[in-house]
Amino acid sequence: MAGKVFKKIQVVGCAEKSFQDAIEAAVGKAANTLKGMSWFEVRELRGALKNGQVVEWQATVEIAFKVE
Amino acid sequence: MAGKVFKKIQVVGCAEKSFQDAIEAAVGKAANTLKGMSWFEVRELRGALKNGQVVEWQATVEIAFKVE
Amino acid sequence: MAGKVFKKIQVVGCAEKSFQDAIEAAVGKAANTLKGMSWFEVRELRGALKNGQVVEWQATVEIAFKVE
Amino acid sequence: MAGKVFKKIQVVGCAEKSFQDAIEAAVGKAANTLKGMSWFEVRELRGALKNGQVVEWQATVEIAFKVE
Amino acid sequence: MAGKVFKKIQVVGCAEKSFQDAIEAAVGKAANTLKGMSWFEVRELRGALKNGQVVEWQATVEIAFKVE
Amino acid sequence: MAGKVFKKIQVVGCAEKSFQDAIEAAVGKAANTLKGMSWFEVRELRGALKNGQVVEWQATVEIAFKVE
Amino acid sequence: MAGKVFKKIQVVGCAEKSFQDAIEAAVGKAANTLKGMSWFEVRELRGALKNGQVVEWQATVEIAFKVE
Amino acid sequence: MAGKVFKKIQVVGCAEKSFQDAIEAAVGKAANTLKGMSWFEVRELRGALKNGQVVEWQATVEIAFKVE
Amino acid sequence: MAGKVFKKIQVVGCAEKSFQDAIEAAVGKAANTLKGMSWFEVRELRGALKNGQVVEWQATVEIAFKVE
Amino acid sequence: MAGKVFKKIQVVGCAEKSFQDAIEAAVGKAANTLKGMSWFEVRELRGALKNGQVVEWQATVEIAFKVE
Amino acid sequence: MAGKVFKKIQVVGCAEKSFQDAIEAAVGKAANTLKGMSWFEVRELRGALKNGQVVEWQATVEIAFKVE
Amino acid sequence: MAGKVFKKIQVVGCAEKSFQDAIEAAVGKAANTLKGMSWFEVRELRGALKNGQVVEWQATVEIAFKVE
Repeated sequence: MAGKVFKKIQVVGCAEKSFQDAIEAAVGKAANTLKGMSWFEVRELRGALKNGQVVEWQATVEIAFKVE
Repeated sequence: MAGKVFKKIQVVGCAEKSFQDAIEAAVGKAANTLKGMSWFEVRELRGALKNGQVVEWQATVEIAFKVE
Repeated sequence: MAGKVFKKIQVVGCAEKSFQDAIEAAVGKAANTLKGMSWFEVRELRGALKNGQVVEWQATVEIAFKVE
Repeated sequence: MAGKVFKKIQVVGCAEKSFQDAIEAAVGKAANTLKGMSWFEVRELRGALKNGQVVEWQATVEIAFKVE
Repeated sequence: MAGKVFKKIQVVGCAEKSFQDAIEAAVGKAANTLKGMSWFEVRELRGALKNGQVVEWQATVEIAFKVE
Repeated sequence: MAGKVFKKIQVVGCAEKSFQDAIEAAVGKAANTLKGMSWFEVRELRGALKNGQVVEWQATVEIAFKVE
Repeated sequence: MAGKVFKKIQVVGCAEKSFQDAIEAAVGKAANTLKGMSWFEVRELRGALKNGQVVEWQATVEIAFKVE
Repeated sequence: MAGKVFKKIQVVGCAEKSFQDAIEAAVGKAANTLKGMSWFEVRELRGALKNGQVVEWQATVEIAFKVE
Repeated sequence: MAGKVFKKIQVVGCAEKSFQDAIEAAVGKAANTLKGMSWFEVRELRGALKNGQVVEWQATVEIAFKVE
Repeated sequence: MAGKVFKKIQVVGCAEKSFQDAIEAAVGKAANTLKGMSWFEVRELRGALKNGQVVEWQATVEIAFKVE
Repeated sequence: MAGKVFKKIQVVGCAEKSFQDAIEAAVGKAANTLKGMSWFEVRELRGALKNGQVVEWQATVEIAFKVE
Repeated sequence: MAGKVFKKIQVVGCAEKSFQDAIEAAVGKAANTLKGMSWFEVRELRGALKNGQVVEWQATVEIAFKVE
């Protein structure tokens, strides 16, 4: 029953310019309250459209952090 | 690294009468501790059976709320 | 809007000897902060390799606990 | 090699008014020949259309019952 | 190369009261421009939340209609 | 609680010449004990290889039949 | 924002003899109204049964065509 | 229409000690009424928790047996 | 049977430089004939290779637009 | 740590006439360099269209062969 | 275009006693020809049955190794 | 049994700056030993986190190349 344990949370980030900004927004916000973040996995990529253009890039990621 | 960020949690609601009651039970309970809930997605629909009848409707939903 | 409600969290456990140890590590760590844990579901089984051997068994589980 | 064992069957119920009626139709019919039914899981939701309206709600469920 | 042919379109319906209303909204709107609608399949169930309550039920369905 | 009810069973058919023969083998064998078979859905297509050639085509199908 | 663009539609073809006839029925019917069809992807294979035999082979395909 | 045909049933086994015991419980119980069992496929791994510990390991398996 | 209704179409965009250009190509082309486009969902990311390099980024997206 | 071991490779076969020819093309080519091929699993079925007709049937298969 | 690159292969291991032995068989055999193996992911768990008992545990794993 | 045949391999690329760099790293490394690479498909997008920031973008792609 020893060994490392990670918890995973699911976060949706939004950004004006790119999916990668959206992921970094999600990670950045999570960093405010979490320590020991270790990896993320992309679950979904979407976006908002307005007047025939992409106005928001949205990325749903699972973020894993170490539980002490 | 600007932009809105949402967190998603997974909740299982149970109800005697319907899946929608089960979803509302999940949402209602989550509302006790969360603000800024924005949308939900149904992940799984199940139920308990007894004496040949449905005695509980169970809905697993992901609830997204805005992280300030 | 009555009825039981469960919350599910996702935890990754790691262990040297087996997937079951990894699951028990995940459950054991979660037990430190959660009460009313009721069931788990295996989502992913992986492991680390070194020098041609399995050196770590990793299990991702969803753990459901009752929300009072 | 002890412990409870359940068998799962897959049943499609149809009803005029709702998915829940369709599920109850499936469960009700299964109850004619099975004892010890314990839970169900929704696998698929569909329906028949006629003259631009839903005329049948169809639910495919897996029903689990205890094997003595 | 004979035989019936159906085309399937994907429609998202929204309603205040229930998923079934949302499905009927999707079907009803599709009926304005399509004839020969024959069946639908539920692809996704979601909803909007506001002030801790479900304010919109959303159903994504695939609707199949006969191509003459 | 009225309405038609179908039960679905899962059958794997094998044939020397083609997937369709394999499906017909599955259906044909099921017809020995079942009445009211109504539709099938292909779940998996596989085959056996020997000396670098396909020697058996295997099709897993779900067969639905009406429950009286 | 240059570059080719394809649209994909989903079509269900039915045929008496084989899945390939069903696919060709779907493609053939789509060819009546579409130009520039480029590829298809099989999404689902099903069939109708009557008197213990396959009486219809049904194939759901996604057909992609170039948008000028 | 010649060739071997297998039927698959879905069984959930439960055991106190391990997933493998759970699978063997499922297989053992199925062996009471079935002959010609040939292979199994794991579909789901879950378990029950009590007082912060795993008290039951549950395995859902599909068991295939030859139809004579 | 009131409420908003959206239709979703599936479009594949191609671009020389990036997936995001590919998505914008898909959206831009769809904007020629559709009004009220509201959101998109990424379904598949692929690309063409030539002489050991990526020469085309391809994105399949579902685009949802409001049906008046 | 005894026991048989198989390796699986993924191969896409193309043929003018049928999916089965495409599978046999994949298997036949693999047979040039592999021994001990034991089974295959179909992963994807697609095809090329030209002038409104199927001009190529494409099958993606996983081929398993014994590792000595 | 710098950075580490891993290749993943798919291997099926078989063992008499357990899934973990099967995984170790797969890893052990792969170790004969590969260096730099880094992690594995379980894709499928199956087994062979004979006389109503499990006689072989089979695990399909993807093994990732560093490409120099 | 004529026709083109492609083999697909699975490669994980890593890069400091973006998913596209990661894909190009994977493709570039594969190009060292493979000829006739024709297309790729993205299977998974992940990344490593350190001190609350993305430090590595990881892309798992399937690369298809023509077998002569």
